[in-house]
Amino acid sequence: MNLQKHVSLNLNLRGLGESPTLAMSERCRVLREEGKEVFNMSIGQSPFPVPNSVVKALKMYAREKTYLPVRGLPELRTAVAEHHKQKDGVNLTADNILIGPGSKVLMYLLQLSFYGEIVVPTPCWVSYVPQAQLIGRQVQLINTTYEEKWHLTAENLEELCQSEHDTYRPRIVILNYPGNPDGGSYTADELKNIADVAREYEVILLSDEIYGQLHHKGEHVSVAKYYPEGTIISSGMSKWCACGGWRLGTFAFPDKLDWLMNAMSDAASQTYTSVSSPIQWAGVTAFKGSVEIERYLWHARRIFSQLSGQCAEMLRDAGARVHDPEGAFYLFPDFSPIADNLEKRGINGSVELCDAILCENHVATIPGAAFQRPENELTLRMSYCNFDGNKALAASETIPLHENLPDDFLEKYCGKTLESTKRICDYVNTGA
Amino acid sequence: MNLQKHVSLNLNLRGLGESPTLAMSERCRVLREEGKEVFNMSIGQSPFPVPNSVVKALKMYAREKTYLPVRGLPELRTAVAEHHKQKDGVNLTADNILIGPGSKVLMYLLQLSFYGEIVVPTPCWVSYVPQAQLIGRQVQLINTTYEEKWHLTAENLEELCQSEHDTYRPRIVILNYPGNPDGGSYTADELKNIADVAREYEVILLSDEIYGQLHHKGEHVSVAKYYPEGTIISSGMSKWCACGGWRLGTFAFPDKLDWLMNAMSDAASQTYTSVSSPIQWAGVTAFKGSVEIERYLWHARRIFSQLSGQCAEMLRDAGARVHDPEGAFYLFPDFSPIADNLEKRGINGSVELCDAILCENHVATIPGAAFQRPENELTLRMSYCNFDGNKALAASETIPLHENLPDDFLEKYCGKTLESTKRICDYVNTGA
Repeated sequence: MNLQKHVSLNLNLRGLGESPTLAMSERCRVLREEGKEVFNMSIGQSPFPVPNSVVKALKMYAREKTYLPVRGLPELRTAVAEHHKQKDGVNLTADNILIGPGSKVLMYLLQLSFYGEIVVPTPCWVSYVPQAQLIGRQVQLINTTYEEKWHLTAENLEELCQSEHDTYRPRIVILNYPGNPDGGSYTADELKNIADVAREYEVILLSDEIYGQLHHKGEHVSVAKYYPEGTIISSGMSKWCACGGWRLGTFAFPDKLDWLMNAMSDAASQTYTSVSSPIQWAGVTAFKGSVEIERYLWHARRIFSQLSGQCAEMLRDAGARVHDPEGAFYLFPDFSPIADNLEKRGINGSVELCDAILCENHVATIPGAAFQRPENELTLRMSYCNFDGNKALAASETIPLHENLPDDFLEKYCGKTLESTKRICDYVNTGA
Repeated sequence: MNLQKHVSLNLNLRGLGESPTLAMSERCRVLREEGKEVFNMSIGQSPFPVPNSVVKALKMYAREKTYLPVRGLPELRTAVAEHHKQKDGVNLTADNILIGPGSKVLMYLLQLSFYGEIVVPTPCWVSYVPQAQLIGRQVQLINTTYEEKWHLTAENLEELCQSEHDTYRPRIVILNYPGNPDGGSYTADELKNIADVAREYEVILLSDEIYGQLHHKGEHVSVAKYYPEGTIISSGMSKWCACGGWRLGTFAFPDKLDWLMNAMSDAASQTYTSVSSPIQWAGVTAFKGSVEIERYLWHARRIFSQLSGQCAEMLRDAGARVHDPEGAFYLFPDFSPIADNLEKRGINGSVELCDAILCENHVATIPGAAFQRPENELTLRMSYCNFDGNKALAASETIPLHENLPDDFLEKYCGKTLESTKRICDYVNTGA
């Protein structure tokens, strides 16, 4: 640990630390170097290969070297707008789209550009709060509950707007579904109700739908359908197209929020300039879509759906409570029903639980506290994507798409994920 | 123009505007759409193709999709350290290197992380000051003069440190050589003297050497050689490797400044995460270097050197004063010796001059004001890279490297650049 004395650092950055997910990857690397086997359920990265046509496109455009426009390659902006039109039923054109090197940096520029309150329901993605800290702001958190399915309700949102003597305070509310860390999604009715309240109080919604194409039933609905004039859709190709490392994210703005898009684009021109050109050209193929990509998504969803169902069962059998997974590749079990057994062993919160499972049973997860949950809550995020996606995809491709995966499929191709889950269950049940 | 009323924007961003170089590209695009021929000397982009071996590497690694470590791919960090060791004679290892999506965003994170004064000699690169504005800071500018070759002198730096009642104020001084916009470079003696003052007053130097490999004689010297313990070298592959659009920049920190590197890396993990993986893999080939790449650089330097010499002659014949170009691909003529003729035509500063040349003779340049020069100064940045780099390189490859380019080479392969320069000369001489 560096004492950081006698240095001239911006106070906002002192103690910020690395993103918890990236820091956990580092811990795993160190453990592996010590010769230990580590079951890594901490990374939010698709295990599948990038679709062939997209890799091919990257190769084809490998010579593209010019600086592209700050807002993005026009062909890509058109493809992204069409993608949202088709998948989400919203009316957008290229002019509504901003391309960034990952949606994370777009979130940061949003927080930097907007002057108002950022409202985030918890559990929430790990970077919203540290990003606010970077620029010396605070985020208004709304703690949700297990019983609410970890969802923001329209009632809670209305209550927030009315609770202060500043009902029309400029606000952005961030929704994220299918959700990281909870893997759940909102129903159309829930979204309609939230949209109504947002419209009434002139709240902007930032709808983080980066996992939209990984809704396990392919039934993702965007809140932009119900509140098109006030919703920014955040997405990208990192998750469904399995290329998080390529760094390409997208924001889709309604016409009315062009002032926010303009400001973010100006800030972009002074910071990252534009997204890597070959990557943007490859992105055109990804967002245009194809039968190949649709098939690929069906396979991915089938595997994630059956695997997560089985993991959730195992967790319930071990005494945890956990919602049925609906999308993305995360489970967010709450071990409070067996808190007694854990307390007896000195485990009183998520950080301790996470550490103990890593040290004793060698499974890396992320503690609920990293998602802004109360420190004494016994929640963890488990990423059920630590299996060989190449093999699993190839095997799934031999099984007709309308069929379920056979009984031994998960054991055979996602065995490591099942083993990781079993190890977590074993840990929490020890001594029970 | 958007009135930006009734919006909730961070005041730091209001009126920020797009980067002037990017904004000028946009103006050129519009003029072209109106059917006008535009001679674009406003873009700082190498006209040459990306070296073959580097393109090949990008294709080979097109399937690389995982999130890489925040600080960069270890193989790339090693290659960058070795590159600086070999080219600049400084002692660095992979641990000293931070990789970012362009050096621009690293500059931004530096300004965000450091708590102290940022000192910038002018003329300076267009983004240092707006980046400070983004985070609500001010930059301490030191205006240099034509007579000083637009260089910061050790005396000026010492004067600054002694002029306030705060000699040891935490400071970063940014040097940029070969320089954008001036195309000049510092001598070893100048750098030694600056290094001595910096050491005495504990000033950190950020040495922006992105054009180092484009020193026309291949004789770039880094100030890090004389002040290794306090110099951060900023570089990347955008300029010498001709792939600005790929977005890969590098910072090399001395061991003593690890606290700054750590803070920037934490901020990176909460903003851009990491640089695109296939691009980083391709970067390994670029920074490792090869005979092919060295040859490529020789050709590029020979062309830039002879072309810039001829353009400078033309400008001098037209009455401007301009220093002999030493590196990069910019000239920064000062038209003050013929100010009378320009004044008669209503031209009293660089913005007017730049506008008039664009409107009347259709050459796009960047006004000196964009580089923080006084508004009434008659300086312009001309990028002499608006020629077909593929053709010019192929032609140069048929001429032995120890020979000068034949007399008709520039006319034949860089004709557009000569024509652009002639149009500027014609404009300033009209009516004289």
